[in-house]
Amino acid sequence: MDTHTAAQDAKGASIKLAAASGELKNTALQAVADALLSNKDAILAANRKDLDAAENDCLAAPLLKRLKFDEKKIADVVTGIQSLITLKNPVGTQLSATELDDGLELYKVTCPIGVIGVIFESRPDALVQISTLCLKSGNALLLKGGSEAMHTNRALAEIISKATVETGIPDGWIQLLETRSEVNDMLELDEHIDLIIPRGSNEFVRHIMEHSNIPVLGHADGICHVYVDQSADLAMAQDIVVDSKCQYVAVCNAAETVLVHEGVAEQLLPALTNTLQEKGVELRGCPRTVALTQVAAATDADWRTEYLDYILSIRVVADMGEAIQHINTYGSGHTDAIVTGDADAAKVFMDLVDSGDVLWNCSTRFSDGFRYGLGAEVGISTNKIHARGPVGLEGLLIYKWRLIGKGHIVAPYADGEKTFTHRSL
Amino acid sequence: MDTHTAAQDAKGASIKLAAASGELKNTALQAVADALLSNKDAILAANRKDLDAAENDCLAAPLLKRLKFDEKKIADVVTGIQSLITLKNPVGTQLSATELDDGLELYKVTCPIGVIGVIFESRPDALVQISTLCLKSGNALLLKGGSEAMHTNRALAEIISKATVETGIPDGWIQLLETRSEVNDMLELDEHIDLIIPRGSNEFVRHIMEHSNIPVLGHADGICHVYVDQSADLAMAQDIVVDSKCQYVAVCNAAETVLVHEGVAEQLLPALTNTLQEKGVELRGCPRTVALTQVAAATDADWRTEYLDYILSIRVVADMGEAIQHINTYGSGHTDAIVTGDADAAKVFMDLVDSGDVLWNCSTRFSDGFRYGLGAEVGISTNKIHARGPVGLEGLLIYKWRLIGKGHIVAPYADGEKTFTHRSL
Repeated sequence: MDTHTAAQDAKGASIKLAAASGELKNTALQAVADALLSNKDAILAANRKDLDAAENDCLAAPLLKRLKFDEKKIADVVTGIQSLITLKNPVGTQLSATELDDGLELYKVTCPIGVIGVIFESRPDALVQISTLCLKSGNALLLKGGSEAMHTNRALAEIISKATVETGIPDGWIQLLETRSEVNDMLELDEHIDLIIPRGSNEFVRHIMEHSNIPVLGHADGICHVYVDQSADLAMAQDIVVDSKCQYVAVCNAAETVLVHEGVAEQLLPALTNTLQEKGVELRGCPRTVALTQVAAATDADWRTEYLDYILSIRVVADMGEAIQHINTYGSGHTDAIVTGDADAAKVFMDLVDSGDVLWNCSTRFSDGFRYGLGAEVGISTNKIHARGPVGLEGLLIYKWRLIGKGHIVAPYADGEKTFTHRSL
Repeated sequence: MDTHTAAQDAKGASIKLAAASGELKNTALQAVADALLSNKDAILAANRKDLDAAENDCLAAPLLKRLKFDEKKIADVVTGIQSLITLKNPVGTQLSATELDDGLELYKVTCPIGVIGVIFESRPDALVQISTLCLKSGNALLLKGGSEAMHTNRALAEIISKATVETGIPDGWIQLLETRSEVNDMLELDEHIDLIIPRGSNEFVRHIMEHSNIPVLGHADGICHVYVDQSADLAMAQDIVVDSKCQYVAVCNAAETVLVHEGVAEQLLPALTNTLQEKGVELRGCPRTVALTQVAAATDADWRTEYLDYILSIRVVADMGEAIQHINTYGSGHTDAIVTGDADAAKVFMDLVDSGDVLWNCSTRFSDGFRYGLGAEVGISTNKIHARGPVGLEGLLIYKWRLIGKGHIVAPYADGEKTFTHRSL
């Protein structure tokens, strides 16, 4: 099937899926959970094929680990589906109700966005998480996974499609794309696709953002900062910096730059840089950092770089204003933390740093849908509209206005014969 | 000042404006209202210049009417500002609060989007409405009005800028652009501008949507439908069709196509078409309509056309499913109405029609921010994300996540030593 037809089918299915009851969607989710368990052997066999091919291609160990979809992973995604079933149907929630005039009532009610295009990395569990989030929120879905997980993704998509359609979910609601060229086709289909959520490398996400008129929800860079204020508890600051940088370096919410108030630089930096260097972190500092410690000099490019590695840049700032200015200039609007004992300073920092996630006295690594308690996440957004930060079910919803009258026409209001009541219901 | 510098200044101001208190913003709004009244003569003189030039250029009467900014219009915008002052500060509203673990608390809190670029038509009152909505919601603003209103817009922007900056609103928050080339420059400035709201002709809005990576909120077409169901009250249906088409033809929420269930076509269409023709509406019908009435034949292009004029296309459909299919195929997702006595049919129609505004037994002309009770509107959106239908203050807001800890780091949670509580606060 070509991409255009796939998108058209998904659009058609999305209209009916939008009206599906919460009960039907939960029955379908339960059927997916059951089918994943009963088709375990087929899934493991498909995953074996992908793993064998990946080993032949000498894929790096971390990639192989992400690709592996074993009994434990199946059990995990089934647990995720069970918890999704317990959530209230997010569609049809009344956001506001207003009487415009006698007998003329306006309701603002949540509904699905429509058709979502998701491009995700090599983890096959992402396919199950994303598709079940879309099902719960009533959205149809075009999915493209990593090509190294082709067999696993194909098996999972078939199982999910079959199980849901058998329970009465409209056929065509989930479509698997398999090639890069299909992704490029998808970028053109703004008539049928309402939102694209790309996950993957910076370059790839940036390519998607620049080559489509379809709205894109996601983030290219995650250039996250920890600012250590004058009145910080320095032991706490060291723990937070180490965790933000080292707990897992290859992810978007890891810190890439530490900003240190000049009032505590001399006291903090020698010990902090020692600790980081002992953990294998390569450090690059501003001239004042270099003067205080044994680190290499940073260039302007360092402040704009998402290392995703055991590398950290450090800059001494004159005050919090300079730190905020630095973050708003070089950051990516993702996640930025302040360490301080001064509540007023923390408030100003959280007000003025223009990022989706602003943190006080905790690690940047907390910025994540699971940790935030959103259930699974479809991605993290650095957009300024619709949804920011970790995006769960809510980001897959929008609303429509429903206006119910008894034959009301506008003319008498325009002529001043009638006036609106605008009363909350 | 070039557009890049203007946008950069607006971005700088937006950061501070985001943290402005509700009290300061209301003081500034009051200062704007006062300054508009005390500078009345200067405004009227500037408007006189624009009107004289427009008369010399032989502008059409409706355009002259829109351009005119007299004492009545000044009084109207001042009333609008007073009602804006009475509204609660929309920034800082807590949308959710969750304890992630002991002492680690997550808050989702509304905030301004940042810098909004608005391109609006010739009415100078739009400048006052848009800028005061942006001020109340804490957004900085780049504005481009119709060039025929240049002197009036310049006077208004200067008065608003001066009055607000004198009360302590950051300088540079409002910037007036004056040429089309500045608008084109603006489309490139995704680093500084967070959202563009274009108002104007279809071609113009489409141009903006296709030539910028900045998110665009608005609508190109308003191809609105009235569907007259089998069980409609036909007298009500006629009133609603006439109002939807004729009450004001030049606007996006006027109906362009009427769909009639075949069960009532013979009874409804002769009288309805007579009434519309008496009101000067040119009619174009499907073959079955042509067979029943004295109207010209419609082409496929008619179903896709926003006439914005005394023209209406009519199609007879076999059932409601065909009407919904027609609307979802040819419509623009703006506003669509059903006339029916059958509540179940109305619910299905409102569920399945994929438009921002779905109406039952009332005129499409109600789909408007003022009539919906939103106060002023910045525009009407046919987007599927962020905001749909008439957009008031709420559409100018987004949220940030604020996470407050006591030195919390992720490592013990990742290692399984600690678990999250995820308790609603």
